[in-house]
Amino acid sequence: MKNETATAIKPELIGGVRDYLPQTMLARQEIFDKIRMVYESFGFVPLDTPAVEKLDVLTGNSPSFQMELFHTAIVRGKEDIKFAFQKQNVEMALRFDLTVPLSRVVVAYPQDIPKPFKRYQVGKVWRGEKPQAGRFREFVQFDADIIGSRSILADTEIIHVMYSVMKALGIDEFLIKINNRKILNGLTEYIGLQKMEQCDEVMRILDKKNKISEKEMTKELSRKPENEYDDSAPNLLSDKIDILTSFINIKSGKRETLMTAGKTVGETKIGKEGIRELMEIIENLEDLEIPNQNWTIDLSVARGLGYYTGPVFETTLTDLPEMGSVYSGGRFDGLSNRFVSDSNIPGVGASVGVDRLFVALEQLGKLENKPSKTQVLVAFFDKNLKSDYLKISNEIRKKGISVEIYLDAEPLKAQITYAAKQGIPLVIIIGSDEKEKNTVSLRNMKTRKQETVDKNKLIDKLTIVLNTGR
Amino acid sequence: MKNETATAIKPELIGGVRDYLPQTMLARQEIFDKIRMVYESFGFVPLDTPAVEKLDVLTGNSPSFQMELFHTAIVRGKEDIKFAFQKQNVEMALRFDLTVPLSRVVVAYPQDIPKPFKRYQVGKVWRGEKPQAGRFREFVQFDADIIGSRSILADTEIIHVMYSVMKALGIDEFLIKINNRKILNGLTEYIGLQKMEQCDEVMRILDKKNKISEKEMTKELSRKPENEYDDSAPNLLSDKIDILTSFINIKSGKRETLMTAGKTVGETKIGKEGIRELMEIIENLEDLEIPNQNWTIDLSVARGLGYYTGPVFETTLTDLPEMGSVYSGGRFDGLSNRFVSDSNIPGVGASVGVDRLFVALEQLGKLENKPSKTQVLVAFFDKNLKSDYLKISNEIRKKGISVEIYLDAEPLKAQITYAAKQGIPLVIIIGSDEKEKNTVSLRNMKTRKQETVDKNKLIDKLTIVLNTGR
Repeated sequence: MKNETATAIKPELIGGVRDYLPQTMLARQEIFDKIRMVYESFGFVPLDTPAVEKLDVLTGNSPSFQMELFHTAIVRGKEDIKFAFQKQNVEMALRFDLTVPLSRVVVAYPQDIPKPFKRYQVGKVWRGEKPQAGRFREFVQFDADIIGSRSILADTEIIHVMYSVMKALGIDEFLIKINNRKILNGLTEYIGLQKMEQCDEVMRILDKKNKISEKEMTKELSRKPENEYDDSAPNLLSDKIDILTSFINIKSGKRETLMTAGKTVGETKIGKEGIRELMEIIENLEDLEIPNQNWTIDLSVARGLGYYTGPVFETTLTDLPEMGSVYSGGRFDGLSNRFVSDSNIPGVGASVGVDRLFVALEQLGKLENKPSKTQVLVAFFDKNLKSDYLKISNEIRKKGISVEIYLDAEPLKAQITYAAKQGIPLVIIIGSDEKEKNTVSLRNMKTRKQETVDKNKLIDKLTIVLNTGR
Repeated sequence: MKNETATAIKPELIGGVRDYLPQTMLARQEIFDKIRMVYESFGFVPLDTPAVEKLDVLTGNSPSFQMELFHTAIVRGKEDIKFAFQKQNVEMALRFDLTVPLSRVVVAYPQDIPKPFKRYQVGKVWRGEKPQAGRFREFVQFDADIIGSRSILADTEIIHVMYSVMKALGIDEFLIKINNRKILNGLTEYIGLQKMEQCDEVMRILDKKNKISEKEMTKELSRKPENEYDDSAPNLLSDKIDILTSFINIKSGKRETLMTAGKTVGETKIGKEGIRELMEIIENLEDLEIPNQNWTIDLSVARGLGYYTGPVFETTLTDLPEMGSVYSGGRFDGLSNRFVSDSNIPGVGASVGVDRLFVALEQLGKLENKPSKTQVLVAFFDKNLKSDYLKISNEIRKKGISVEIYLDAEPLKAQITYAAKQGIPLVIIIGSDEKEKNTVSLRNMKTRKQETVDKNKLIDKLTIVLNTGR
């Protein structure tokens, strides 16, 4: 059984993926549990789909059409679908988001899913990123979506859910920025842009508002076509650019911002509709008493390209603005088009970037930092008393207290060190003395004090110490 | 935005994988939560590792050696590592179990993990099965292992955990069968088998005890070599076969079984050690008061081939014996050998076959069967009262009751149908009458009765009805 001839294998990972060791995982699980509780309190139900899907389901077959609908995903997708492989002549790949699988489920099981379908899903997704710092090829998304309702109440509910999740995670200083793609579409119509490619390009540039200077933005917006096939060059004159840049910089009260915007885009049908929808969202959020400082109307939010069709949302952390949005979403009313060309199933949802949020919570000092959940360690002090250790640990566990018995009869010092390293607050030590007197020695790892406790009063004592720390 | 030219894509899955729709997922989540609670109550901590690993980490580089250590995995693995692919010149594949990643972690982070390392991990694994009924290419494992302890207390604890998980899942009628690979190794030594290949083959045949007839077993055990390279043919004469078959059929009290076994294998050093270990496990489990009917010593349990090195366990359901083992494990003391040839890190653990267990719980009628966790639906009855619906749903949710507001002002009948389909027990209806009188109409979906409740007493009323059903 000795490994004599084999070359030892290095215990390494591929680039761009991570192990989560227990201390990190315990904190992550708490985040997952809290998000799940909020989603369920709003009536969302869980869905799970395979990690591996057919390649055509993920990418869509018709680039020109799919470029419209799942533009962000697919433009990235060209790079992302690198985790594709072939087996038994079926081309397949690891999913790159949870929205495409949702759209497949909605079309595949029309009788089995309720309408509206309020589902949440947590799971890993994979992207074909080049391995580099901060870019991951495997990460977790936690989505909530409402499928099948065109009601603005659905959009409101997603924003309410986003607010509730942030609060449940212990974050108070955040801002949910709300805009409407219809308003931006009205804006491009207002300044006379006609080509879809140009509109998309302008959105993309406006979305960079917080990343580039006004001068750079002007330069990009005035770019002329490089050749006759260059359909996306905005080619805008300075009067139009002024309209655009002053538009996305409108900043006053929520209703006032929309009223100012209405003076221009209100002249288009689509823009007017977008403003009416946001007015209704404002009313609803006020009815729900979502604190004023946690949400705003921000006309510069565009959220990607052709994917969204209505209200869009993103969430920034007041103390970590450089992190960008940690929780984003919006309305997408062409969800199922890749499967059924004549249907038009509406949807609205949001996705938590769990990994980004995790880093943020860490930086904000809001993470639990425990290596273990064990509350009591029963030391293995005397081999002859093994049976007593087993019995007492069993009794304690039955009372709902998590307890470990140290597994080897090592020196007590090593066992105390283990308790310290694992953050276990209490250690029970029983030697022949204690056994004879029907007591235990209880060591409080925090105060480093040890006291003798009557065995019959042990559970009460443990409960008190665990609740009060003393 | 219309899909005119594109060929519609079929919303299909690849073979051998599954979607879990909400009703199933809610039941699965309850199983996961219960298993996790038990694992944590024993001090196990969570670990997560990437789905995608380097191919050599998963398969091992030296077939001859690895065939020994991870025999089951690799023999299967030749088929299983079909989910392998290449990217940027790194060969990688989807993991086929959670044990190989654990071994990598143990070697990769020696300072960061405690000793002993009691970790649990839940996650998907992938196998290259040919798609066919009941064979899945993607499924979930939920493992608990103790790494770094040779103490029999560790083996005991894994059995105790297995027992506790089964009970937590509401199953009373099950049997944990315990054996020791050392006893079986003693047995093959006792009858004079010398080649490793022969020993493994004999184990494999004995392990089929409940699947093949005694005649077939005799035939397989007497098989002669087909050619000079056939090292695995047992080639046993009838006296030896008699020893083997009567040995694995020994059935009496736990200690008596071991004492009878001791008369033969007790003559070998390894067999004697194996018996001593199981005697200690019996003592421990009796100290822990694990009910007698839920565990036994079964000398026919072999659990795969070269993987395990000590005690082995499997769990069968009394009412569904044909299902085989739903929860198995054992001691494996060569965990890290593929990475570090001179180390010999001990481990013992068990893995729940979540999907098999799920089918079993379904057949036993022990699954929660709820399409949703929502407790109250606020009907959207009158468009003018939208603001009231938002406010009341918010108040109810703040009291910890999960509540949905119906999102569209559809006919009340459609909303009641939705509540019925989703299994939501209570519906709140507010029209202008109720609004005026500061009351709500509360419909109990089970009794189909509707009553008027004073709005100030609503929360109390809801709490009572949700707790008592009336």
